[in-house]
Amino acid sequence: MALTLGIVGGGQLARMMIAPAVELGIDVRVLAEEPGMSAALAEAATGDYRDLETVRAFARRVDVVTFDHEHVPQEVLRALVADGVAVHPGPDALQFAQDKLRMRARLAELGAPQPEWAEVSDAAQLRAFLDANGGRAVVKTPRGGYDGKGVRVVSHPDEVSDWFGDGPLLAEELVEFSRELAQQVARRPSGDLVVYPVVETVQRGGVCAEVIAPAPPGAPRLAEVAARIGTSIAEGLGVTGMLAVELFETTDERLLVNELAMRPHNSGHWGQDGAITGQFEQHVRAVLDLPLGDPSPRQPWTVMVNILGGPVSDTLESRFPAALAAHPEVKVHTYGKAPRPGRKVGHVNAVGDDLDAVVEGARAAAAFFAG
Amino acid sequence: MALTLGIVGGGQLARMMIAPAVELGIDVRVLAEEPGMSAALAEAATGDYRDLETVRAFARRVDVVTFDHEHVPQEVLRALVADGVAVHPGPDALQFAQDKLRMRARLAELGAPQPEWAEVSDAAQLRAFLDANGGRAVVKTPRGGYDGKGVRVVSHPDEVSDWFGDGPLLAEELVEFSRELAQQVARRPSGDLVVYPVVETVQRGGVCAEVIAPAPPGAPRLAEVAARIGTSIAEGLGVTGMLAVELFETTDERLLVNELAMRPHNSGHWGQDGAITGQFEQHVRAVLDLPLGDPSPRQPWTVMVNILGGPVSDTLESRFPAALAAHPEVKVHTYGKAPRPGRKVGHVNAVGDDLDAVVEGARAAAAFFAG
Repeated sequence: MALTLGIVGGGQLARMMIAPAVELGIDVRVLAEEPGMSAALAEAATGDYRDLETVRAFARRVDVVTFDHEHVPQEVLRALVADGVAVHPGPDALQFAQDKLRMRARLAELGAPQPEWAEVSDAAQLRAFLDANGGRAVVKTPRGGYDGKGVRVVSHPDEVSDWFGDGPLLAEELVEFSRELAQQVARRPSGDLVVYPVVETVQRGGVCAEVIAPAPPGAPRLAEVAARIGTSIAEGLGVTGMLAVELFETTDERLLVNELAMRPHNSGHWGQDGAITGQFEQHVRAVLDLPLGDPSPRQPWTVMVNILGGPVSDTLESRFPAALAAHPEVKVHTYGKAPRPGRKVGHVNAVGDDLDAVVEGARAAAAFFAG
Repeated sequence: MALTLGIVGGGQLARMMIAPAVELGIDVRVLAEEPGMSAALAEAATGDYRDLETVRAFARRVDVVTFDHEHVPQEVLRALVADGVAVHPGPDALQFAQDKLRMRARLAELGAPQPEWAEVSDAAQLRAFLDANGGRAVVKTPRGGYDGKGVRVVSHPDEVSDWFGDGPLLAEELVEFSRELAQQVARRPSGDLVVYPVVETVQRGGVCAEVIAPAPPGAPRLAEVAARIGTSIAEGLGVTGMLAVELFETTDERLLVNELAMRPHNSGHWGQDGAITGQFEQHVRAVLDLPLGDPSPRQPWTVMVNILGGPVSDTLESRFPAALAAHPEVKVHTYGKAPRPGRKVGHVNAVGDDLDAVVEGARAAAAFFAG
């Protein structure tokens, strides 16, 4: 019978794996944190992903376990593997997405280009790092941060005094970058790998706002350098499924690794409508160890614009008629989430030959859902 | 909260509405004939679609009712409408897809081009039709036929003697056609309408085998004539949702209406990967009375090849690795159905600039699932 994919976590990334899995003929089951989440259509159980017995009971009913997020604890992941469950990405890879200090140390071993960094456990160590790096630094909690949370730009150790005492922190050079990029790679357990075009990501308030695929020209040999970084990290860390490498393009034209995500990632939403094989289908294929699809763009340009919840009194669905009528060529994706301010609740993709027109179309369509 | 689409029938057409609905942010519920059908992921109830109370209970839980097939009885449909349920397509339109005699009579009133036809209730009437039409005819039961069932080519009334006595039959001229085409149109309850490019359909054994979109050049002004026929039928019959008009292109370069389908149709599967807005998304938008999407092709050519069940001992999924590895550029869709001989269990779509290469790629990928 059909293969069954199990996804831990009921958010929009799980939701967006449903469509390509259904099209391929693959069954999907989701272990959601609570009933009625984004991926509720495929909800097979609800419970705490930190509880081994909850996850173990879910895993018995599927062929492969993958994830909507990177928060399942190592001890749960390792127990599943010991049970003989196929877990992709596996704990050996996921640890580097779960802990930013481990990531920095391992990337250093791999020779990946990254900002200056240090492990700092107290104010004196951070003071030393600040002194060595122009008096400013980005300080991160090694675990649990996302979308700008757990990250502070500081010029004095006092600014993170509340974070000390709970394990070491990661201090990073404040990189002078001209823009941010993301490089996605898909890798199967068998080792086969495909590389997506590097894309430009535009952040606002620590949250991804827009993506342009592929990234407009920048540093020399940008695409090749980014592809090589993505490939070496996917292979070096043993990632299975989708890997996103967030990159800084520096003002002196270097690429430096910012963050890693081992799952479908906001920077890859463009591919649902802009690539022959989008990241959600690719992730499904990769974690089931099926041959990977062609990651090539369908059109010269694709632009993705996120829809963030605003102080709206009406529902997202009430905006459909005007948005769809004005933009029959744009693809609207929404996640079935209540639009709280700043929350990612959907995105739009526009494709075409002319970048300016594509950007304009995507922004104009997304604007119908704003405020 | 999210709009909820209710689909009566749990087959692959319902299944393929799930993916675009999920992407748009629309909830989907299916009333399936039995548990575990193609659209099981969205199964909210199982039961007999001919039973008013079953359908009525289902309809209470959704915003709009649409269909995987055209078999829901008129009395059930009309009772729902009387209850105030939004039913698309509605009974006034669906009657013409449910009864081929009514269809022929209504198309005659609309002036649509069609084969010679007659209502025949006994052998003498069929004899007269045969004598007037070269001695051969296509005889159809007005109701319940599909994929070649309920259709016989006859040269003598005795060949349908078992069909007489159960109401009138439809006799049609045996058209000399050079090829078959299909014209799809989407229409909203508000009346807005979009027209897909006319496509060529290749039938084998009474079942659709391949579709080429758009149809290669043929009769003069083919696309315009087909579009006009499709539009006038959608408007004349008051169709809401997707309408497929199956057409003969005759050896003397006329277009004649063969059959109608008021739902997504096998001739439109190409659009999932080949059109900006495929028929499944378009049907969802149309029946919910949302603005329609752009039906334009993404690439010059798309070819769809059906996967039919064969005398296989292994499962369809066992064919994935070889097929996907050989054709990373082709999109494979399977329906989660057991592959009985001759049963439609999936299809592949290939897109590109060069028709010969696209045909070859689609056929080669589909061949991995044959036999």
